[in-house]
Amino acid sequence: MPSRQTDTLRLRRVGIDTYRENVAYMHRECVFYRAEGFQALTKIEVKANGKRIYAVLNVVDDEHIVAADELGLSEQAFDQLGLAPGEAVSVSQAEAPASMDAVRRKIAGERLRLADFRAITQDVINNRYSKMEMAAFLVASGQNNLDREEILHLTRAMLESGERLDWHEPLVVDKHCIGGIPGNRTTMLIVPIVAAHGMMMPKTSSRAITSPSGTADTMEVLAQVELTPRRLRELVRKERACLAWGGTARLAPADDILISVERPLGIDSQGQMIASILSKKLAAGSTHLLLDIPVGPTAKVRHMREALQLRKLFEYTGDRVGLHLEVIITDGAQPVGRGIGPVLETRDVMQVLRNDPQAPQDLRQKALRLAGRILEFDPDVRGGYGYSIARDILDSGRALAKMEAIIAAQGAQTEAFTPGRLQFEVCADRDGVVTVVDNFHIGKIARLAGAPMDKGAGVDLLKKLGDAVRAGEPLYRVHAEYRSDYHFAKVYSEHQSGYTIGEPGQVTKTYLEF
Amino acid sequence: MPSRQTDTLRLRRVGIDTYRENVAYMHRECVFYRAEGFQALTKIEVKANGKRIYAVLNVVDDEHIVAADELGLSEQAFDQLGLAPGEAVSVSQAEAPASMDAVRRKIAGERLRLADFRAITQDVINNRYSKMEMAAFLVASGQNNLDREEILHLTRAMLESGERLDWHEPLVVDKHCIGGIPGNRTTMLIVPIVAAHGMMMPKTSSRAITSPSGTADTMEVLAQVELTPRRLRELVRKERACLAWGGTARLAPADDILISVERPLGIDSQGQMIASILSKKLAAGSTHLLLDIPVGPTAKVRHMREALQLRKLFEYTGDRVGLHLEVIITDGAQPVGRGIGPVLETRDVMQVLRNDPQAPQDLRQKALRLAGRILEFDPDVRGGYGYSIARDILDSGRALAKMEAIIAAQGAQTEAFTPGRLQFEVCADRDGVVTVVDNFHIGKIARLAGAPMDKGAGVDLLKKLGDAVRAGEPLYRVHAEYRSDYHFAKVYSEHQSGYTIGEPGQVTKTYLEF
Repeated sequence: MPSRQTDTLRLRRVGIDTYRENVAYMHRECVFYRAEGFQALTKIEVKANGKRIYAVLNVVDDEHIVAADELGLSEQAFDQLGLAPGEAVSVSQAEAPASMDAVRRKIAGERLRLADFRAITQDVINNRYSKMEMAAFLVASGQNNLDREEILHLTRAMLESGERLDWHEPLVVDKHCIGGIPGNRTTMLIVPIVAAHGMMMPKTSSRAITSPSGTADTMEVLAQVELTPRRLRELVRKERACLAWGGTARLAPADDILISVERPLGIDSQGQMIASILSKKLAAGSTHLLLDIPVGPTAKVRHMREALQLRKLFEYTGDRVGLHLEVIITDGAQPVGRGIGPVLETRDVMQVLRNDPQAPQDLRQKALRLAGRILEFDPDVRGGYGYSIARDILDSGRALAKMEAIIAAQGAQTEAFTPGRLQFEVCADRDGVVTVVDNFHIGKIARLAGAPMDKGAGVDLLKKLGDAVRAGEPLYRVHAEYRSDYHFAKVYSEHQSGYTIGEPGQVTKTYLEF
Repeated sequence: MPSRQTDTLRLRRVGIDTYRENVAYMHRECVFYRAEGFQALTKIEVKANGKRIYAVLNVVDDEHIVAADELGLSEQAFDQLGLAPGEAVSVSQAEAPASMDAVRRKIAGERLRLADFRAITQDVINNRYSKMEMAAFLVASGQNNLDREEILHLTRAMLESGERLDWHEPLVVDKHCIGGIPGNRTTMLIVPIVAAHGMMMPKTSSRAITSPSGTADTMEVLAQVELTPRRLRELVRKERACLAWGGTARLAPADDILISVERPLGIDSQGQMIASILSKKLAAGSTHLLLDIPVGPTAKVRHMREALQLRKLFEYTGDRVGLHLEVIITDGAQPVGRGIGPVLETRDVMQVLRNDPQAPQDLRQKALRLAGRILEFDPDVRGGYGYSIARDILDSGRALAKMEAIIAAQGAQTEAFTPGRLQFEVCADRDGVVTVVDNFHIGKIARLAGAPMDKGAGVDLLKKLGDAVRAGEPLYRVHAEYRSDYHFAKVYSEHQSGYTIGEPGQVTKTYLEF
């Protein structure tokens, strides 16, 4: 009588990168394949030496990839298991993660408790969830399906899922924008201003996923942004600040994994967004956070009442997890500054830092206002005086000097990037004033032109809301580095320029002045 | 200036079976990999010769799998593209499927229209949807999130997604049980009875996914069930019936793909279930359908009001897609018959067909009632007379003869299966009567014992609801073929026997007598 449990397979590393999805490769002739009733895409458990990982099964018909007595693992799965090739591993069908019960209860409309969210995040970071199980959780907790207690539970559970930095300082500040506004590079101005004042601001940012550029993509035009956690710590001790990519830290890892499913799905979840932002900031050791919610007809948040509701949820959650949080609702009617795409945005930022009279004033003003509010986190700064302190730091050149110090500390970029050489202009089709500049379409054109992968690609806005134009006058210039991208962007812009020219009374209403 | 569009890669078949998920393999040094900004798990479009498929990208670091100038495709993806190895293919980033907009609208709580469901099913069968996108659709349309108009639209869209058989007969009957009751093998009795009467019943069934056996698994103990569409047609012309596996046909393919995500997620969706069942039956050419909804405390449907609501939805949809549909609500308080698992169920079925006095009477009665209702689809059968006609056909041996003819026509099974040799009994812990037989736990024990993969594995019920027992008297016997399965089933049954012994007044109420 055969006994299945004593059998093992020899471990093999298969040189295939499957990103955040563990894959196991088993030959079709392998005894386990038929005996256990596995199918391709079955989730299996691989065990050896007290270690265990979960992986999705692919069945192999080629002995060069794996032999019948071997179990292959994709690169990430192999690293996770952490054993040498050739070691004996056993495999079995993985039970569905226990916390899927909670997900099914959520789908059925139940409220979940802290223990449920803890179990879910734990199973997620242990790779127990398949992509589709994560999608089920995200959709079930999508839209406004989480109430504020649940958002708080999720934030706590995500925070507990990873490491937490401690800077051993009473005041560690951060800012975050919920996004949706191309060219909104205030972070690269706020960090040097605030750090020049002496506040600690260890800023890590993301790369673009759906936008034409993330702060990390733009900063990379000037300096190295992929720093080891150790170098990052040294640098922050020395300069009080950094402008780095946040991808190397293992902070709130459950959030990183869930985002890898949420982004491609393009689904919005208020609760997931709040928990994601706050758990990340807390894990990074921030004590104070300024949160920017742009509102506008083509922004992520389209109505003031929505922005206010979001503000309350952030405040409620922030207060209960011990983060000093201020929310500022800003004008998201159009892109900020002129350039969109890494090189063009860098030009705008440096013009502001250098007090160049050509510098885009909207970018300068917004950065000063936000920096001012952050400076007021300092108990020694009198309420209302932050803005003028920020302006003094910028005007005096101290912000520029701090930026140069940060660039030198991170390692100046050796490559000199320039705007993409292939260019075309999109022109007004009539006399009038600019009444609409659509954030979405302009962002899309910049991406089609190659941003953020091609640093020089993007859109340079020559006219903004309310500007008078004559027929044939250029509205914006598109830069690309490759002919195919140039072509894609051109075809799209002919179809959807993102600009509307009309009468002065029709200019998109600014939702608020601040 | 480089132009990306003229470049192509040489096609290669990679011997990896990724089931219903197309995977493309690209070497990390491939020019496209960096140039296009692909990442592992990016969805890409592969084109050549006017053909196009979509696949998820895996990045390869091993030249034995693919070289830098090659594009590898998993077996199914390669077959789908249908080109020879070495042919030139071009790749690009796939846009998210356009119908994901409709999915996002559904998540936001909107009602979808027929055109939306058509676009979704079309994108699903064209492999445009990733597993997680399908999960998003399923969760968004899960529970009772589809209203009856949407269920009708989804049914139509699924039906249109594939081929549709036409038997060129006015009356093609089918039956379907929504499941959840182990041992419920009435189909293997109904088909020979109905076919002996001369009605056409080309029955295709599924294999078990979460249950201890599907009709196809059990029938396979007696005959071949994996028949080509052509042999199936010949056989039905000759015998008026078949008892085959339905997996070979390409009927309602969108449903097959969605089910491959829905089942492992374990989420329930009333709308998906109704659309799935009805579109499959219509595509198989059925004109009349008898639908069995078992109700019981451990069945899928637990309350009569739920069963009635489900019945209305089936009727509403059936009427509008032109399927003559009768719903029968049956007693789902406990398993049907004695045996659970392919061999043991076959024994029960053959005992009934042979009019063996040992035959389980509940299985016989249920099969006769259902067969009787199907016979009444025949305009020549007077209402209320179906049952007695069915009984005459069974008692006279004509049903047995028809079953033998079907077995011979499909090809009798050459292997003689027997009940698993490893056995143990689970006994009553006190004197009393059986008050609960839990469908879920009994099914789970049969699966742990090895059913349906090991034909002889399963559970043989020796006592049923209301039976008097003495302490130590066996309640059921478990059969396994492998020691590990024996062990798993034993441990589980010690923890959860699935039986409760109590007083006569406590016997689980039968929800209805029919």
